[in-house]
Amino acid sequence: MADNLKFAVIGGGSWATAIAKMLCVNLPEISWYMRNDAAIEHIKTHKHNPNYLSSVEFDNKKLKLTNDINEAVAYADYIIFAIPSAFLNGELEKLTVSLKDKVIFSAIKGIVPETSLIVGEHFHYKYDIPYYNIGVITGPCHAEEVALERLSYLTIACGDPDKASIVAENLSGNYIKAKITDDIIGTEYAAMLKNIYAIAAGIAHGLGYGDNFQSVIMSNAIREMKKFIKKVHKMKRNINDSAYLGDLLVTGYSVFSRNRMFGNMIGKGYTVQAAQMEMSMVAEGYYAVKSAYKLNQGYGAKTPIIDAVYAVLYEGKEAKAVFKQLTEELD
Amino acid sequence: MADNLKFAVIGGGSWATAIAKMLCVNLPEISWYMRNDAAIEHIKTHKHNPNYLSSVEFDNKKLKLTNDINEAVAYADYIIFAIPSAFLNGELEKLTVSLKDKVIFSAIKGIVPETSLIVGEHFHYKYDIPYYNIGVITGPCHAEEVALERLSYLTIACGDPDKASIVAENLSGNYIKAKITDDIIGTEYAAMLKNIYAIAAGIAHGLGYGDNFQSVIMSNAIREMKKFIKKVHKMKRNINDSAYLGDLLVTGYSVFSRNRMFGNMIGKGYTVQAAQMEMSMVAEGYYAVKSAYKLNQGYGAKTPIIDAVYAVLYEGKEAKAVFKQLTEELD
Repeated sequence: MADNLKFAVIGGGSWATAIAKMLCVNLPEISWYMRNDAAIEHIKTHKHNPNYLSSVEFDNKKLKLTNDINEAVAYADYIIFAIPSAFLNGELEKLTVSLKDKVIFSAIKGIVPETSLIVGEHFHYKYDIPYYNIGVITGPCHAEEVALERLSYLTIACGDPDKASIVAENLSGNYIKAKITDDIIGTEYAAMLKNIYAIAAGIAHGLGYGDNFQSVIMSNAIREMKKFIKKVHKMKRNINDSAYLGDLLVTGYSVFSRNRMFGNMIGKGYTVQAAQMEMSMVAEGYYAVKSAYKLNQGYGAKTPIIDAVYAVLYEGKEAKAVFKQLTEELD
Repeated sequence: MADNLKFAVIGGGSWATAIAKMLCVNLPEISWYMRNDAAIEHIKTHKHNPNYLSSVEFDNKKLKLTNDINEAVAYADYIIFAIPSAFLNGELEKLTVSLKDKVIFSAIKGIVPETSLIVGEHFHYKYDIPYYNIGVITGPCHAEEVALERLSYLTIACGDPDKASIVAENLSGNYIKAKITDDIIGTEYAAMLKNIYAIAAGIAHGLGYGDNFQSVIMSNAIREMKKFIKKVHKMKRNINDSAYLGDLLVTGYSVFSRNRMFGNMIGKGYTVQAAQMEMSMVAEGYYAVKSAYKLNQGYGAKTPIIDAVYAVLYEGKEAKAVFKQLTEELD
């Protein structure tokens, strides 16, 4: 395995910061791109990201910080994208450096709104990256617990197992265990779908449903996810592995999940617009549900939870009535 | 379906109180046995159980309260047991009235310590009750949310589907949906095993592991439960149905679960004896893990979580070291 492979992290948010922290344990140097100049200056001076996971102290000798995405891409053999899916297309349009022969890993959990593709597909179809050069980094993992160095498990998916292993090794450490899989499509869809289910859990909570119903939603969600992913890409997978069920649970049960919080506001009576304004950022699941719902028009899987979230967010249906109906369809 | 079937509830705790509440929605009268004379007097005077779910108001005209288990058994066609498994054998030894031709439903989630049998098996082998007269009432359902009339789903298992339907109908209401299954063995083992996993979740929490690891435990637990139950009773079941996965989640993620609380104290360094004294009652999972561990000596299923909890509770092993090892075995 090549020892001198270079890594770049794209993004300045909490998950990007967590990934930069993990890589710095194993690598002498990484390139780290973020748009925010003030954050770059702050890290250079104070050794920590002022906006996200600010308790994490970096060794600045290891960081090649840049506000130029082309510089980061030119530097690296492996590029890890960890920005909101809604910003991906805009960032990629800045590229003048070629992605050819680069290995692209997505730590983004969502749908690219402009193309309605999951991130791996977006790179494959729009940038002609072969699937053996595309990978996915998935949880179950809150960035906040990486900052606290609490034990977390990652799943690294790539069509080429050697590349998955390289990424897994460079992320692993005392408190990070990373395993590999070849289910790149399934893990990425799971990571995307779980945000929809977290919105559903949030809506239910906002409407006043309790923990008993929350567990019914989660148990139905994992069955629904299994059916959906099977339609997208049929292969042997255990949907109860950590990358699927674990990732669903860590998000669905988290009071810190942006998606769950967004759903909660909807359940409490906020309009979609008001909830988005209040949160100052759109939850990934907002785009994901539109895409998943439309995809499923072709697949025809039975997906009552996705349908319910879509009806509330895009068809202007009243959450209370939609969820009352949903309770009849779950078991 | 006979309209004049009579029901008795055995037990004065929170789950028994919730079941009495549910039955009173549908029945003109029930018999309700509890040992505590003061509680009986309090209910007669104040219309609510002083010790559990005290917000629930009963219509006393519907309650035949008694401190004589024989009176309750003699009265009823259907008898629902909802007492801690550790007390069951002692209560049954008081019986002079025959259980022959009675339909017995267990709402107990545990192992009978004296026989190391699940409750259904205990009635079957020790009292010669045929399996078509034995059933199980399982969640996912916290009694506290029944008191609050929050939507909850029950699963009613019986070898005889007509009897399962009768119980389901008499428990159902505006906020209770009950479905039936014939997997009496699987649902009862699931209800028993989930308490062990809740102890494991509690120990991990007490040791300082976070939400990321919690989701890994749960995702491994459901896979472990599936393997275990398959060894006990092989049949077609979806382990992600609410009765199995939902019940695991509602307990494993509940800060109110006695089992999780017990585990948490162990993780924080209490001895087993000190934790039991502090809680004034033994958590069901404490007996369950002994039994499950021993059963599995014969089955040979891979059950690292059960093994870890057993090692901590019964072999005097240090929780920190055992769970450190466990983290290597999970994925």
